[in-house]
Amino acid sequence: MKKKWVYRFGGGSAEGSGKDRNLLGGKGADLAEMARLGFPVPPGFTLTTEVCTEFYASSKHYPEGLEQEVEAAMAHLGEQMGRRFGDEKRPLLVSVRSGARVSMPGMMDTVLNLGLNDQTVAGLAAETDPRFAYDSYRRFIQMYASVVLGLPHENFEAMLADVKAQRGVKLDTGLSSSDLVKLTEMYRAEVERATGKPFPSDVRQQLFGAMSAVFGSWMNARAMTYRRLHHISADWGTAVNIQAMVFGNRGNTSATGVAFTRSPSTGDRSIYGEYLVNAQGEDVVAGIRTPQPITRAAKDLMGTKLPSLEEAMPEVYASLATNLAALEKHYRDMQDVEFTCEEGKLWLLQTRRGKRTARAALKIAVDMVEEGLIRQEEAVLRIEPASLDQLLHPSLDPKAEKKLLAVGLPASPGAASGAIVFSSDEAVEASEAGRQVILVRIETSAEDIAGMNAAAGILTTRGGMTSHAAVVARGMGRACVAGLGSLHVDELQQTIEHGGLTLKAGDLITLDGSTGEVFQGAVPTVKAELSAEFRELMGWADRWRRMSVRANAETPEDTETARRFGAEGIGLCRTEHMFFQADRIVIMREMILADDERARRAALAKLLPLQRADFVQLFEIMSGFPVTVRLLDPPLHEFLPQTDAEILEVAKSAGIDPDSLRRRAQELHETNPMLGHRGCRLGITFPEIYEMQARAIFEAAVAVRRKTAKAVHPEVMIPLVALENELELMADLVERVAREVESESGIEVEYRLGTMIELPRAALRAGALAKRAAFFSFGTNDLTQTAMGLSRDDASKFLPAYTERGVLADDPFMTLDREGVGELIRIALERGRETRPTIELGICGEHGGDPRSIDFCQRVGLDYVSCSPYRVPIARLAAAQAALRPVKPV
Amino acid sequence: MKKKWVYRFGGGSAEGSGKDRNLLGGKGADLAEMARLGFPVPPGFTLTTEVCTEFYASSKHYPEGLEQEVEAAMAHLGEQMGRRFGDEKRPLLVSVRSGARVSMPGMMDTVLNLGLNDQTVAGLAAETDPRFAYDSYRRFIQMYASVVLGLPHENFEAMLADVKAQRGVKLDTGLSSSDLVKLTEMYRAEVERATGKPFPSDVRQQLFGAMSAVFGSWMNARAMTYRRLHHISADWGTAVNIQAMVFGNRGNTSATGVAFTRSPSTGDRSIYGEYLVNAQGEDVVAGIRTPQPITRAAKDLMGTKLPSLEEAMPEVYASLATNLAALEKHYRDMQDVEFTCEEGKLWLLQTRRGKRTARAALKIAVDMVEEGLIRQEEAVLRIEPASLDQLLHPSLDPKAEKKLLAVGLPASPGAASGAIVFSSDEAVEASEAGRQVILVRIETSAEDIAGMNAAAGILTTRGGMTSHAAVVARGMGRACVAGLGSLHVDELQQTIEHGGLTLKAGDLITLDGSTGEVFQGAVPTVKAELSAEFRELMGWADRWRRMSVRANAETPEDTETARRFGAEGIGLCRTEHMFFQADRIVIMREMILADDERARRAALAKLLPLQRADFVQLFEIMSGFPVTVRLLDPPLHEFLPQTDAEILEVAKSAGIDPDSLRRRAQELHETNPMLGHRGCRLGITFPEIYEMQARAIFEAAVAVRRKTAKAVHPEVMIPLVALENELELMADLVERVAREVESESGIEVEYRLGTMIELPRAALRAGALAKRAAFFSFGTNDLTQTAMGLSRDDASKFLPAYTERGVLADDPFMTLDREGVGELIRIALERGRETRPTIELGICGEHGGDPRSIDFCQRVGLDYVSCSPYRVPIARLAAAQAALRPVKPV
Repeated sequence: MKKKWVYRFGGGSAEGSGKDRNLLGGKGADLAEMARLGFPVPPGFTLTTEVCTEFYASSKHYPEGLEQEVEAAMAHLGEQMGRRFGDEKRPLLVSVRSGARVSMPGMMDTVLNLGLNDQTVAGLAAETDPRFAYDSYRRFIQMYASVVLGLPHENFEAMLADVKAQRGVKLDTGLSSSDLVKLTEMYRAEVERATGKPFPSDVRQQLFGAMSAVFGSWMNARAMTYRRLHHISADWGTAVNIQAMVFGNRGNTSATGVAFTRSPSTGDRSIYGEYLVNAQGEDVVAGIRTPQPITRAAKDLMGTKLPSLEEAMPEVYASLATNLAALEKHYRDMQDVEFTCEEGKLWLLQTRRGKRTARAALKIAVDMVEEGLIRQEEAVLRIEPASLDQLLHPSLDPKAEKKLLAVGLPASPGAASGAIVFSSDEAVEASEAGRQVILVRIETSAEDIAGMNAAAGILTTRGGMTSHAAVVARGMGRACVAGLGSLHVDELQQTIEHGGLTLKAGDLITLDGSTGEVFQGAVPTVKAELSAEFRELMGWADRWRRMSVRANAETPEDTETARRFGAEGIGLCRTEHMFFQADRIVIMREMILADDERARRAALAKLLPLQRADFVQLFEIMSGFPVTVRLLDPPLHEFLPQTDAEILEVAKSAGIDPDSLRRRAQELHETNPMLGHRGCRLGITFPEIYEMQARAIFEAAVAVRRKTAKAVHPEVMIPLVALENELELMADLVERVAREVESESGIEVEYRLGTMIELPRAALRAGALAKRAAFFSFGTNDLTQTAMGLSRDDASKFLPAYTERGVLADDPFMTLDREGVGELIRIALERGRETRPTIELGICGEHGGDPRSIDFCQRVGLDYVSCSPYRVPIARLAAAQAALRPVKPV
Repeated sequence: MKKKWVYRFGGGSAEGSGKDRNLLGGKGADLAEMARLGFPVPPGFTLTTEVCTEFYASSKHYPEGLEQEVEAAMAHLGEQMGRRFGDEKRPLLVSVRSGARVSMPGMMDTVLNLGLNDQTVAGLAAETDPRFAYDSYRRFIQMYASVVLGLPHENFEAMLADVKAQRGVKLDTGLSSSDLVKLTEMYRAEVERATGKPFPSDVRQQLFGAMSAVFGSWMNARAMTYRRLHHISADWGTAVNIQAMVFGNRGNTSATGVAFTRSPSTGDRSIYGEYLVNAQGEDVVAGIRTPQPITRAAKDLMGTKLPSLEEAMPEVYASLATNLAALEKHYRDMQDVEFTCEEGKLWLLQTRRGKRTARAALKIAVDMVEEGLIRQEEAVLRIEPASLDQLLHPSLDPKAEKKLLAVGLPASPGAASGAIVFSSDEAVEASEAGRQVILVRIETSAEDIAGMNAAAGILTTRGGMTSHAAVVARGMGRACVAGLGSLHVDELQQTIEHGGLTLKAGDLITLDGSTGEVFQGAVPTVKAELSAEFRELMGWADRWRRMSVRANAETPEDTETARRFGAEGIGLCRTEHMFFQADRIVIMREMILADDERARRAALAKLLPLQRADFVQLFEIMSGFPVTVRLLDPPLHEFLPQTDAEILEVAKSAGIDPDSLRRRAQELHETNPMLGHRGCRLGITFPEIYEMQARAIFEAAVAVRRKTAKAVHPEVMIPLVALENELELMADLVERVAREVESESGIEVEYRLGTMIELPRAALRAGALAKRAAFFSFGTNDLTQTAMGLSRDDASKFLPAYTERGVLADDPFMTLDREGVGELIRIALERGRETRPTIELGICGEHGGDPRSIDFCQRVGLDYVSCSPYRVPIARLAAAQAALRPVKPV
């Protein structure tokens, strides 16, 4: 069968419809849909994506029959409009726009007002008015020169600015028709100068030039990189839409604008938007003229004197309002609509789903359920989980003036202002004195926990989105900007320097952890407030969710926060965090410096009651929910001071020899600490450490059982297992301690023992590990590091180049690498379940709070995700969405 | 069917045979075999391994019927010997020995002379002579007390020494029968004191006590650790052998000894061994009396005056010689035989395969083929590949006196003496001045290459068997002892200190890289010489080999060595090694310090001709064979000086600012360099580096083609690929350069492009990678590091504890972890071949030179292994053996 290359639309009917996105592209399908439904869409036609495919399959030649189809469609279009393409009296002008199957922002090429040349412009001038005709002509030449001929935009802008300056006018509308005639001559001369050829006056040549430019843009470097990143096949191709022009620049009864069916900022049920009289679309964006509000109510709210569309053109407004209501009802979502009014007649150029703030999204979704427009499940699916972050953290006052200093990585959301401090101790002191501070570090380590907790925000120059600073800040709900490499920190001089500007300790700065921006001075912030809509929607989400959501937490505060946000247990309690408080780190160091097991045991005996008391609190707060406790994981050197100054200070305050401290630190130094003496390797070389921790867990369980009469079921988790024998030995040790505590207390000690799966070998050997492990918790941070051979502390140096060159679409530490790390999870899950069908499977890496990764977890069949307390609501929503989405094979 | 628990042997027949190792254990099966064949074996019987299994299955109770079977067998044994167990006149004495299916050295419990008490010893004394009877009695009590009752051996040794001292004699044979009577009384009193119970006089109780002790030893901690390490199932159990005693201590016509059918040291065809008159087996081992040679020829050779067995007991000798010849013929291998002569009658107690030196092994194998005793394939299978190392490197003169200083890891074989130096520069200077030196470093880095090459040996205090020092030393064939953590190196004072002894720069030390020993002073060494047998056997090996063997090499010297040892190409040319020579590192640093791409390209342009010249040499030496060139792999900071002193020196000599050098080094610092900015990540961020390298390769290929008219087919290898897009981009880059060089030179440029598989993700995504990769080379060093999450630079701190506690059987950096890393190889191979059935698969990690890992490579179906030049013969032999072994599923 002969293929049909061109699909027409307009005049209340269309050859395609909204379902034909693959063939007509997104824009073409939407235009067809609107036309079918009788919305006032300028008529036109779409060249299908198959034309694009053929074009590339045959060395950029158009398929047979295409030219004839285009000619026929143009003739038909002219008839509809009462005009003719290239006609010297009543010329038909068209727009030419790309439109791929999925939106590819930044590569949409558009040419407007096509069909003008010296003859047709004269006819248009005679028929309408010369100012309008030449205004359209200069717009056309500039756009065509840029999009089709590849000349820099700036040259033309400069000529326009020159002419305006000569005429002493500020706005384009101030130019007369003769100014515009002169400008079109200058433009054409520039084109001839730059290309060596005159500007094409043949309108057919113009049309095919524009079409080829749009099809050609499908294979430019930018588009190819974009497609590689978004797994879009080059075979898909783009469509081209050719549509009759309607003119908002045809005098003062014409206008152009953008309208939202509801407020994109608050979600309120009122039309929101702006328009310009006597203008074309790009003028609204250019920002030279001030756009006017659409409604009278908005005008009053903004306090502007400019007349609203409702006042200035009441009939057009009434027609717009009717159309907007109908579009919203048809599309069942808030719409963002481009419209043009030509001499009092309203035309719709585009409709699409309107972008909105998180607050608006929640209100719109909940309102629409109440209005009976959508179902609860749809409402749940419509909220972007990550957007909830905006609601959980303070944000910058959008009205405040800001002085941008630099931009780093948006490592932990929220906004915070404070005075610069350079050490954890200063942060604690200042906080105790009631001062708000921002802790600035090259990178943070476990020792900085207290300072990070005391600070309002954290700024680091090294490390990525999953660096220590980022992970801890997210857990604590502190704002954090990380990896700001261009900022020079001089800890000795107590200064920071960026782009020639130097700030010193005590100077005020403001962080926006949601964008990575750092501002000079204190920018006012707006407090987070959880709306009734938030609670309503989260309730619906929980109804549809299959996976449970736990939190990564170890302090009572974090655990309380997690419960408040709806966490159903602790999925990861990092016991080492409990050792960094001032009273404990001293004992911890005593243990590390001990010469033999006896001395180590003496120090551990002092830690036991402290750790037991911690667990008692956690078990009480999480009463009835599981608490997964990971035994000591980091290498011991993390507990020792690193720099000479710190060593001296610690040695002095602890009354020990600095040399022996230094020697021990050197002994413990590792080339690749991520792959070093940590995790269960500590438990095997120093079993007394894990013994103490197991005892603290079981004694705490017994104490809570005694106090509350409720059984506590802790889950003991062995970290960094690579070998079956490691788990075997550690499981034996834990079981022995459990039986000891049981016989000492006379109270039954129940627990489950499991392992982290955070090394590729553990994933591959999951079948053997499941013999002893009642649960697996995927530690996807370390699993990503080892599977990809990628240090998360160092990757920030080259990952930007990777994204730029299209090697990687996402930061694999933020969004799970499904094909690599995900494959290991699939293997582990399959092999683990084969040995033990009831094995409990969860994820506790940073990915546990990432919506796309949560979707993957749902699809492979995990039982729970665990994330930092402040991400619990996001995870709940994402898990609900994952459960609601159709199941596709992963 | 009722199980049979006891199998008898002796008197020319046996119920079992050599094939019943699973049921009778190794020792029991060999005794049955010898008995069947008519060798003079003392009769006895074996309790099967099934008794052991039943024993543990029923809480250490013997199965029903066992006691009766034992009683019957003992009665039968008595009849054969004309004696009766427990008889007061002619008592039967027996030995009780363990014997598992596979040899488990160090856990074999043995009790001799069992059946003696105050009554039977009197009978035996009356029947034979009192001295012999009480000598046997005291031996029995001591052994029983130690093995069955668990009393320390030393207490009894001390009493024996006391009595000898009182009597003023040096040897046991100097004690009279009354001395021995007194000793047995003392021994029994000691047993009663220590256990609270008299020494058991009931011979039945003695027998079952000894049996239970042997079965009990199967589950002791030592045995369990050993089994966990060697994957031996506890279900296998051990057998127990009960055998009539024959006595070498029955006066001067009795003797005991050990004989080899050929020389275990040279392989010469003459009996070799030693014996003692009037003694039991343990006296030969104890070393108090000097054993005498077996043959007259050996006596002459040793220059001893002690009479040989051939002279002293010519008939016994003749019988022994006949038996030895028959045993060798039956077992078709050189045998190590224990014998006892009781009053002129020869008994064989045990025969087993004789251990031998590499030199002897080669000679014996080649001789036996010539003698028609074995086939060539068998000869090939009999040589332990690792033992060839002894033949390829100088070794310590076995006769030299040595003063052991310390023992580290045997990181690179061979022996070397020299003066201590602490820096690479000093090593080079000394070497140029003709002095032999040992380079002592805490750890080596790429900068030390020149010094390592100049030194006779390398000693480091950090790092394991696959540390930089170890790998490079093996490649160069230098002796190396690594990871000697107990040695304190003071580079400032230029001293080393160990156990209180301090040596300074210039002092002489000697390394034995095959054992890890370090000696004070210069120990004479023996040069390596390749025998005719070596060449003969390697020829046979090559005939049976399927996989090819390549070398890891980049210098002309190493490449020549590799060819000489039979390498069939280069499997890994680490181009970075080419950048460390003095003239190049300067340019390399210039490139690293460059501010922009232009400056980097300028520096690279200077490196191009140097690197091209390197490749020209390699291609010429390896003419006709493939040369796989890996593009730059290590992180750039490895090329910069690290310490402050080095920075100052480099900055001064290069005329650059030390601060900018320091700043750049700091910028490049990485937390986990193994997982950092290296491999193809460099190629993606600095494509100009890989462009230069690709150009150098292709221009060299063109130059060699012009010169020799032979086509060169280089293999270009991209390192550290994790993502499909990485390979895609780098393959495009290499292909572009190839076409450029082709069009510039007018000569066709052919090459193959492939990738290292050294990250788990690459293994999992092999199917996608094979679209661009014509070959995979498994980089098992990094694959082991990432799959197990184990840094080879740091693991030496805890791996010893892992081996000790039975967590790991082998160092995974020496012998491939089949279950984890091997699984990744299997997955990659399967997925890679699915995409590209002809894909070439090899291994280039350190495992490529390890025989057990080579066996794995053969089984999974790799095409080649690549190893350091000095391991090429080992790999050739191991590959031949792997091909000759029966195929088992892996």
